[in-house]
Amino acid sequence: MNLKQIAGERAVEFVEEGMVVGLGTGSTAYYAIKKLGELVRLGLKISGVCTSEQTRKQALEWEIPLVDLGDVECIDLTIDGADEVDPHGHGIKGGGGALLFEKIVALNSRQNIWVIEKRKLVQQLGAFPLPVEIMSFGHQNLVKRMAGKNWNPALRMNGSDVYMTDGQHYIVDLGLRSITDPVKLDLELKQIPGVLDHGLFLNTVNKVIVAGTDKVEIITFR
Amino acid sequence: MNLKQIAGERAVEFVEEGMVVGLGTGSTAYYAIKKLGELVRLGLKISGVCTSEQTRKQALEWEIPLVDLGDVECIDLTIDGADEVDPHGHGIKGGGGALLFEKIVALNSRQNIWVIEKRKLVQQLGAFPLPVEIMSFGHQNLVKRMAGKNWNPALRMNGSDVYMTDGQHYIVDLGLRSITDPVKLDLELKQIPGVLDHGLFLNTVNKVIVAGTDKVEIITFR
Repeated sequence: MNLKQIAGERAVEFVEEGMVVGLGTGSTAYYAIKKLGELVRLGLKISGVCTSEQTRKQALEWEIPLVDLGDVECIDLTIDGADEVDPHGHGIKGGGGALLFEKIVALNSRQNIWVIEKRKLVQQLGAFPLPVEIMSFGHQNLVKRMAGKNWNPALRMNGSDVYMTDGQHYIVDLGLRSITDPVKLDLELKQIPGVLDHGLFLNTVNKVIVAGTDKVEIITFR
Repeated sequence: MNLKQIAGERAVEFVEEGMVVGLGTGSTAYYAIKKLGELVRLGLKISGVCTSEQTRKQALEWEIPLVDLGDVECIDLTIDGADEVDPHGHGIKGGGGALLFEKIVALNSRQNIWVIEKRKLVQQLGAFPLPVEIMSFGHQNLVKRMAGKNWNPALRMNGSDVYMTDGQHYIVDLGLRSITDPVKLDLELKQIPGVLDHGLFLNTVNKVIVAGTDKVEIITFR
């Protein structure tokens, strides 16, 4: 078993009988959801809330009972991945394209656990391109505006088509290289009309489970 | 001719040959677009950028040549309505449900003119319900969260269905009664995941054309 899988399964140890569990998107969340599916088959009673169509398919395949976010008071625990995490526990997410759904699920979760590979622990965020979810209406001018700020925007493509999120929006990936002040950037991005949300997840995660080359570590933030 | 119509036509006097003109949504913008259509028929050469499907239909009917926002460097002048305007020129817009499109058009306009009836000039914003555009995903919890802040949220309906914007989102109208600090509220709303944008238009308008009971006034802000 690889350490990524061990880390994913480690996250599932925090799941208790009767919980509503947020199911994240991406390759690291995959193993956690798979393990949850095995436990459900053995009799564990939980309900899942999905962050994407991709995760929904996976959960249905493993017969994890699903509920809509609107049908629950709150999510007890969400297990998700992340693309970068800094020493303050701030992260970049949304490489998989589900950032808006993931952010809404995270906000509605009592506890958020991210499972990541060790190379995603960074001193400063920004080497990973920051995904920004935007309206298709007027996106050309918005991309130009971002280029003018030296944010190196790249409209995400899917072959020769523009990539479309589950919410029917576009994504721009910003090649910022380093983000010196994520809190300031968060505010600046949100002030731009046409920007719906972005992949900076600040003060969100409670525990990060890190798959290293020879061990799995758990970092607790809040 | 009523003063609302005179005010709308007054706005059109700022339109010059060759301009790209943003066409607003709602009953006050209606007369301006109608007048523009008459001038186009008489030979005025302009192109229009629409803020909504409703405006697009109206513009096509009056044969105003239309372009996509993405096809122009910038809009020279946008004529739109507003639901409330305070003494600083801050406004509430989006009663018509097109706030996200209107905001993107306004941002991309060199000059913004609003045409309003005098009763919409207020000392403090907030008697008019503030529209907030939100994701449908997780909207139940978001509405509860807003209720917890005493914002008196009401999910906008269309008969027995939830009202859907042109961008396929929902709208919550906040019954705030009075907004003491619009700048602070702007930031607070934008920080909530699931909130895409809202109807506070701060530091946006250049001229407000006011249709009173016996005269039309022009207020210049910036």
